[in-house]
Amino acid sequence: MTELSPTPRTTLTREKERGVSDRAELMALLREGLIAHLGVTVGDGADAHPVVLPVAYAVEPDGPDRDGTLYVHGSVAAGWLRRTPGASVCVTVTALDGLVLARSAFNHSMNYRCGVVIGPVRLVDDPEEKAHALDLIVEHVVPGRAAALRPNTRKELAATAVLAVPLHEASLKTRAGGPEDDQPDIDAGYWAGHLPLRVVASPVVPDPAAPGPVPEHVQRRAADFA
Amino acid sequence: MTELSPTPRTTLTREKERGVSDRAELMALLREGLIAHLGVTVGDGADAHPVVLPVAYAVEPDGPDRDGTLYVHGSVAAGWLRRTPGASVCVTVTALDGLVLARSAFNHSMNYRCGVVIGPVRLVDDPEEKAHALDLIVEHVVPGRAAALRPNTRKELAATAVLAVPLHEASLKTRAGGPEDDQPDIDAGYWAGHLPLRVVASPVVPDPAAPGPVPEHVQRRAADFA
Repeated sequence: MTELSPTPRTTLTREKERGVSDRAELMALLREGLIAHLGVTVGDGADAHPVVLPVAYAVEPDGPDRDGTLYVHGSVAAGWLRRTPGASVCVTVTALDGLVLARSAFNHSMNYRCGVVIGPVRLVDDPEEKAHALDLIVEHVVPGRAAALRPNTRKELAATAVLAVPLHEASLKTRAGGPEDDQPDIDAGYWAGHLPLRVVASPVVPDPAAPGPVPEHVQRRAADFA
Repeated sequence: MTELSPTPRTTLTREKERGVSDRAELMALLREGLIAHLGVTVGDGADAHPVVLPVAYAVEPDGPDRDGTLYVHGSVAAGWLRRTPGASVCVTVTALDGLVLARSAFNHSMNYRCGVVIGPVRLVDDPEEKAHALDLIVEHVVPGRAAALRPNTRKELAATAVLAVPLHEASLKTRAGGPEDDQPDIDAGYWAGHLPLRVVASPVVPDPAAPGPVPEHVQRRAADFA
């Protein structure tokens, strides 16, 4: 077990019983998640404010950054992306696992797993690392897919920016199970419970111009969301 | 139709064909979403960095702020929350609708609806507005639930901070449908398609100490995720 939260920025200040310090659990969530919410600061001085956008991502536990690397990509034309390198960003991956319906509004909650990574952004310049990161992002969405695609063109690679964030500074917070109510509320006979939620897939929709059967790697991925 | 994106901060700079300027569509997404990702800036000067956390929320189209109010709540003990009032925050609600598997890595995408609200945070002091906002947040999770709970105590209200963000400065970006590939890639016979995703519920899990049948308002909510 590798401890997480090595700095005050990612040390939980509240509900520490929901904090998890097992790096393997964080990595499992990051492997399972489909999108991350990337927070960047834009603007200067009094005008500075955060912007949070959903992004595709991938992780490389053996990446060149401390404790591994989280990669996101975007268009080089994206304004927020141009301003990012060198700055600290926050990458948050949340899996919503259910609604917790307690006997009081105060004890209502959600079941979730939430991983937060904070760190300085590095713009990936090295062509080999960049190509690897882009493959990882495609493979993160559908394992086996990178080998089924036509190769990236030089123009596409030039139009795509890849950003790397170290996985070093990270935390994981989770909640699971039913409501935790106060005994008087339980005794008073209010109903309570929880509603588990999960992401499922509808059948694959082949493109009208696509040949042949749905490839096996796509069928396998659909089965992950059965 | 009310136009969105009234300021440069929420005017889309890229892929404008994916921008939607219908306020009704934004409100529909905000009503449907279960969690928001709230981005706040913490730290000062060179140490400033964004933190992005998942939060429960609700919207009041007739709220006291310009174009309506988005409410989030948190513990008064939460460090990030104490530093927030007056500052600009970003509240992002994303529905992931599917994976878009194109013929090239470059044209891979996701189907989604993403609403972004940026604005100054107001700490809700007025007891009536605060109680209304907390009811709205419970009702947002499960409509009909607020009336089924024991009332909030003064201690609980004192321990809960409610933040309000105007719905004025907002944008909505969406993508739907299959891949959009280049004709040479289509002609080359690569497979492509998309995998629709949605959130579903497993059966309600009553708390072991809960009396009687699952209440109707909870059954109705579970049916939303059938």
